[in-house]
Parts: sequence; structure tokens; C-alpha cells
Amino acid sequence: MEYYSSQINRLVEELSRLPGIGSKSAQRLAFHILNMPKENANSLACAITEARNNVRYCKECCTLTDDELCPVCKNSKRDHRTIMAVENTRDLAAYEKTGKYEGVYHVLHGAISPMLGIGPADIRLKELMVRLQNEVDELIIATNSSLEGEATAMYISKLVKPTGIRVTRIASGVPVGGDLEYIDEVTLLRALEGRREL
Amino acid sequence: MEYYSSQINRLVEELSRLPGIGSKSAQRLAFHILNMPKENANSLACAITEARNNVRYCKECCTLTDDELCPVCKNSKRDHRTIMAVENTRDLAAYEKTGKYEGVYHVLHGAISPMLGIGPADIRLKELMVRLQNEVDELIIATNSSLEGEATAMYISKLVKPTGIRVTRIASGVPVGGDLEYIDEVTLLRALEGRREL
Repeated sequence: MEYYSSQINRLVEELSRLPGIGSKSAQRLAFHILNMPKENANSLACAITEARNNVRYCKECCTLTDDELCPVCKNSKRDHRTIMAVENTRDLAAYEKTGKYEGVYHVLHGAISPMLGIGPADIRLKELMVRLQNEVDELIIATNSSLEGEATAMYISKLVKPTGIRVTRIASGVPVGGDLEYIDEVTLLRALEGRREL
Repeated sequence: MEYYSSQINRLVEELSRLPGIGSKSAQRLAFHILNMPKENANSLACAITEARNNVRYCKECCTLTDDELCPVCKNSKRDHRTIMAVENTRDLAAYEKTGKYEGVYHVLHGAISPMLGIGPADIRLKELMVRLQNEVDELIIATNSSLEGEATAMYISKLVKPTGIRVTRIASGVPVGGDLEYIDEVTLLRALEGRREL
């Protein structure tokens, strides 16, 4: 990548380190940035620095936020006795977008994966157990429907059930609008197992 | 996009303004940046600001660079009597990557497009004409093989030919390794027209 002058090269290099950005996209992005009004480029740079420097974990639910408490934990109208455990902040946002969930969250920052050497101590499980010592009615486990997500759900449920708190798992099955013929066998079997009376 | 705290939202928003970055990719990039070591995030931000603030046009060939002259124009070993006109700095880099072109460049920053209201005065043509008043043996027109690129090539060639300078156009035809059955008719006809004796 020695085809541009040094500062342009450096920008292309920095951008190409981002996930999903190859060398061609990095060049396209770099020249887009170079052709931006100066204020816009500086505002982008400033958003990166400020977000990175100020972001921290919500002291209640461990999500990434820029305040001591995240907007959800701060909100007294939410049901603080229902906790949904998710793998990361993006999953939290996905449920927030539905606009229908009234409870609060707990962000685990990962899932247990013996393959990747991620054990129960590597995710924010200890923090969850501490929270469950307060008055909590239900723990909804909303980890992904992957091998790791399922293993994490099983592990947490075994850990929490003895405390008497209700532990539930989000349903897995055919996605709404999904066409049966294109859905994998495991999902089809899950949907069958999870069938309900009409 | 009100599902994260304000600084994270702002970062996601800024990133989603970049070309080809949708809202999902912007979130993925934002959380990647938030999980980077602080130095790396600051270094990315700094690369953006510095490149944007210091970049300017090479006073010889008009490419984007951070010095008065770009590395190619500065290089006295290059053949300064052969000029290749390209549409943008990325096209210049594409030819530089071949490592075989010995001449210099002229970056037009666009192509003539009546559809988009881009006329000859909107690209760096005046600067090219000034350069052609020096001793120049050949002008190679390497604009894209699109409608606009071809129109620009025709326009420039008509303008320059009366000066007596040799004007050439890069060949258009079947790309190396290309499979004839997947190549469009226009390219196939171009390749036929441009056939050479073996």
C-alpha cells in the first residue's frame, strides 16, 4: 500500500483494520473522508475518540454506556424485577427496538465456549448472580440460539434455579414470515418441540 | 437509533453516513471501536483528522497528496514527458500497483457527464492543458471505459490533437482470465475491433 502519500496510506491502513473492511473498501472510505467537508471529518474523528474514551460498563447491567447507569437501568418506569440476560449490547438494542419489553437487562459480554477457551468466569456472570440477590421475579435468558448461547443458557439456569427465581428461555422456532422449505432441520424440530395448543 | 447511550448513538450515526455502511454495519463497527484498546481508537481518529486536514492537490498532477508534489511527480526517475490522464487518485494507484508504468499522471477528478451536469470546466482539464505546454511526448487517456469516461476521452483527444502531442487511449477488450461467455456484447465487439496481428 505504498501508492498514496503517507498520510493517505495511513488512513487506508487504519480503516482496513476494521472488521469487514477490505483493502478496496478502505480506499473507497478513505477518499470519501478526504472529500468530506473538514467539519464532517473532524466530527467523525471526534465521535470515535469521545465514545471510546468515555464509554464504560453500566454498574447495574454491564452494558456499554457513557454514564454510570445506562438509560434502561436509570428508568424507574421499567420493571426492575424482570432481568433479561443477553450476550452483548447489540442484542440489548435489538430487544429495545421492539419497544415492548418492560424489564431490564444484564449484558454478559460473551457466551461460554470451551472451544474458544471462554469459561463462566470470562463473562459477566458474577455480576448477574450479585443482582439476583436483590428482589427479582424472573430471569429471561436471551443468549443466541447457537451452541455457545445454548450452553450458556443451560449453565445459568442450573446456577440460578436453586435460588427459587423463575428462569425462562426465549422461544426458538420458525421466524415470522419464514418459509418452511428454506429452514434448517434443527430449527424445524425445535419449532415442533415447542408447539403450543391453539 | 435511540437504543444506546448518546455517545454510542452519535458514533453509530457518524459511521452510518459513510458510503456502503448501513445501520447494522455501523453498529458492528462502533462496537468494534469501543472494544479496541484506547490507543488504537485514538490512532484511527487521528489518521482521519490529519489526513483530512493536510491533504491537498499535487500542484503538478492534481492528485490528492499531503505534500506540495506527490511521490510520482517528485520522482525524477519517472518519464515526465508521458502523462496518463485518469479520473481519480484511486485509478492512479491502480496503475501504480502494476509497477510497470514509468510516466507521470494527471488526475482529472471526475469525468464529463451531461447527465450529472458535469462539464469540461468542472474537471481538472485546464491544469492538464497548461501542463501540455511543456515538453510532452504522449498523453495516454485512461479514463474509465464507461459512457462518461469515453466522452471525456473523446473531448480531451479533440482538444489536444491540434497541439501535435501524441494522444492514445488504453485498450478496451476482454479482461485477462475472462471467460468469453460471461462478457457483455459491447466488450466483445470492442475486443474484436481492437484485434491485433499475431
